Amino acid sequence: MSLHFLGITGSLRQQSRNKGLLRAAATNVPAGVTMDIADLSDIPFYNADITNKPASVQRVLDQIAKADALVIACPEYNYSIAPALKNILDWASREPGNALLAGKAVALMGAAGGMGSARAQYHLRQVCVFLDLHPLNKPEVFANAFSDGFDDAGNLVDERILQLIREQLQALVTWSTTLERP
Amino acid sequence: MSLHFLGITGSLRQQSRNKGLLRAAATNVPAGVTMDIADLSDIPFYNADITNKPASVQRVLDQIAKADALVIACPEYNYSIAPALKNILDWASREPGNALLAGKAVALMGAAGGMGSARAQYHLRQVCVFLDLHPLNKPEVFANAFSDGFDDAGNLVDERILQLIREQLQALVTWSTTLERP
Amino acid sequence: MSLHFLGITGSLRQQSRNKGLLRAAATNVPAGVTMDIADLSDIPFYNADITNKPASVQRVLDQIAKADALVIACPEYNYSIAPALKNILDWASREPGNALLAGKAVALMGAAGGMGSARAQYHLRQVCVFLDLHPLNKPEVFANAFSDGFDDAGNLVDERILQLIREQLQALVTWSTTLERP
Amino acid sequence: MSLHFLGITGSLRQQSRNKGLLRAAATNVPAGVTMDIADLSDIPFYNADITNKPASVQRVLDQIAKADALVIACPEYNYSIAPALKNILDWASREPGNALLAGKAVALMGAAGGMGSARAQYHLRQVCVFLDLHPLNKPEVFANAFSDGFDDAGNLVDERILQLIREQLQALVTWSTTLERP
Repeated sequence: MSLHFLGITGSLRQQSRNKGLLRAAATNVPAGVTMDIADLSDIPFYNADITNKPASVQRVLDQIAKADALVIACPEYNYSIAPALKNILDWASREPGNALLAGKAVALMGAAGGMGSARAQYHLRQVCVFLDLHPLNKPEVFANAFSDGFDDAGNLVDERILQLIREQLQALVTWSTTLERP
Repeated sequence: MSLHFLGITGSLRQQSRNKGLLRAAATNVPAGVTMDIADLSDIPFYNADITNKPASVQRVLDQIAKADALVIACPEYNYSIAPALKNILDWASREPGNALLAGKAVALMGAAGGMGSARAQYHLRQVCVFLDLHPLNKPEVFANAFSDGFDDAGNLVDERILQLIREQLQALVTWSTTLERP
Repeated sequence: MSLHFLGITGSLRQQSRNKGLLRAAATNVPAGVTMDIADLSDIPFYNADITNKPASVQRVLDQIAKADALVIACPEYNYSIAPALKNILDWASREPGNALLAGKAVALMGAAGGMGSARAQYHLRQVCVFLDLHPLNKPEVFANAFSDGFDDAGNLVDERILQLIREQLQALVTWSTTLERP
Repeated sequence: MSLHFLGITGSLRQQSRNKGLLRAAATNVPAGVTMDIADLSDIPFYNADITNKPASVQRVLDQIAKADALVIACPEYNYSIAPALKNILDWASREPGNALLAGKAVALMGAAGGMGSARAQYHLRQVCVFLDLHPLNKPEVFANAFSDGFDDAGNLVDERILQLIREQLQALVTWSTTLERP
């Protein structure tokens, strides 16, 4: 068995703690798993009037197509989802028959203020209903972005959260395998 | 008494039904009210690394500052808020002391599939808690975007929805006046 | 293969449309499926001080234990879940290790005003995260309780909704089988 | 000026931390404010078939009618609202013209696991939209029920949370006065 995960986050800044979560995930995937991280820095807002899909969008959609499961690091801006994250999911949702997303397994994590992006993650779970994505129920990963759990460059240094991420990725292996079985 | 409202929507396309709702609102404001509609077509994604606020962002923030109340036409993309709408609120929330938004009255409306953007509007109401905005409870305005209630250019032609908007704008006059009283 | 479903609803009144949805489901289960409907009329409020579990509660918990999947007809009271429905799930959640609920497949349907209990169903989906239940993403079943889709006794007579329920039950067979495979 | 607040919570057990929050509130009301706490221990489930309103229900509805504002201590059961709290609001909502609740100011607080009932409080805020209640945006009060912030009898002993409650009650005086001004 070999699986490929794609990491996506909605934070665009260089020293983003959510990017730090994805880097920690990518270097801690279970045996047999590979993981890439999408770059959303050049993705324009979705607009139904844009008839030629931009190359930057196609690049990320190709990464999603190739992935067996998604690892989403969900920032929380003003108690909901960061626009750049919602936006790439909106682009992905426009493929015929929702072929890119339907039935795919997802792991959700996030770094934010006191509640670790929980409020945004529950909104994202509602989005997953329409997109026919299947987020893991557990473990949920909520990291405090304003603690010493991250260094100044945004790298995760909190061993407890790191262990939770390892458990979540292992659960994602099981979950995506369960969902993919014919 | 004279009040000024600002209309904001998250749909960027030309023939957007949500833009149509805002045009209908702007031409049906109660006596003593003026209303502008913000243009979000050139607003970039919020990114904490951007230290010089773009002129396009400042333009809309100035419009928000000038408004006594906001009229938000909230599209629904994949069961949640359109990124362009969330994004301008995220930009506005970064002003010192939340001075642009705190305490302001808001009316919410939306055009979308079967439920008229209800799912997105409830997410937006949660955003309003953190932003310290005060959305009207009633009337709620849910328009079916895929009905003959709109013409091909996105203009609202459904008299029932138009009447509801008139009632909502009248309620917004009362609500913003109540909130602003010293 | 043989599966057993349990129907649960939060409406207690005799002519409940949500009870009508469950009756329609029970008489339209796919081949190889049996379905019971739980009676919540004598279930007391959960209270941590009650140390002897009431017989009525144990009766329904036994039904849940026996079921391969749950079919929940979710009324909407004041934009959220009916207390009697939430209450039996709260009772069920107190079993050691969440053994009654963890990993179980669920189908959600509901009859209510204009949006067919959608607002309550999305709250219920958040409850399912903690309970480690797996609700189907699609099809969603939203029935208008105040239409002629129900007769005076609360029986479903809307053929379109009935067909949707048949499709949902078929999807629940596939989904629960997928989840149960070791 | 004199105001009367009513405290309501959905936890029924004796040593409830949410009852503890309400007791702390009642003994720390601002000058000029009186506060009672409702007893929900004998309130039956709402059921539209019950045509004679039970005396226990009428007792609490009378308390709500008398109150200028509500102070709700919202437990979190399985990521949503405790049934006993939702249930009394459902009973109250059935009065003609929503006369008991419409336009009333509300303060929300809660004690629960890690997030202090935040998930339940956001659901309750959605309920308030339909009930036409006006919850304060800020300050939000989230208390950790499983900390030493409460003694064994459920009394609040965390000075930081107590101070937050004092600030919230002061804000509720201002907010209810703003809303009630003719």
